[in-house]
Amino acid sequence: MADVDNRDAIRQYVALLGQPEVEQLVDLFADDATVEDPVGSELRVGREALLEFYGTLPDMVDRAEISGPMGGTDTEIAFNFTVHATGGLEMQIIDVMAFDDDGKITSMRAFWG
Amino acid sequence: MADVDNRDAIRQYVALLGQPEVEQLVDLFADDATVEDPVGSELRVGREALLEFYGTLPDMVDRAEISGPMGGTDTEIAFNFTVHATGGLEMQIIDVMAFDDDGKITSMRAFWG
Repeated sequence: MADVDNRDAIRQYVALLGQPEVEQLVDLFADDATVEDPVGSELRVGREALLEFYGTLPDMVDRAEISGPMGGTDTEIAFNFTVHATGGLEMQIIDVMAFDDDGKITSMRAFWG
Repeated sequence: MADVDNRDAIRQYVALLGQPEVEQLVDLFADDATVEDPVGSELRVGREALLEFYGTLPDMVDRAEISGPMGGTDTEIAFNFTVHATGGLEMQIIDVMAFDDDGKITSMRAFWG
């Protein structure tokens, strides 16, 4: 665990959002990870569900970037990022991510709207 | 619930942080509310614990202000704010708050550090 920087994983995650390397993005997650995006919606659970979800993004998202502070512990971190949609729209999102001892994301909750 | 704007409660919360009106601040919370500040620390539970916790802030905090996006559902919201400490230090914090049907805060989790 000492060698794992989960904030680096977050930077990789944001850089990969909407890019064609969907498998590489989902590799950042643990096998049984959960995604709640947006918060309040039904949980997506596990690799197949995540591949499907993140696989829809390249058509909608041009790029994303960290756009504000990041804070928390080594294993639970909140951060701000901006999504630039293909149509030009910008969305400000706050994500909360939890990580396991291997530095894999175990849960992601996205606060927006 | 329709008449309750929990985002207004958040603005009141941030405006009251570090001010002498500690009871007014704690009145924003439900009686059995939990506070985890920072995330990963022991939960503070209930009105007495919150009065004690927020009662320490006026000595340390000059003022706080909303300083970034706010997002989520009607009942679970993440937001950015900046704390201006009495010594001049600034801290960027992301809070996640949950609310009950009466618009009272049931949990606060503070991501910083």
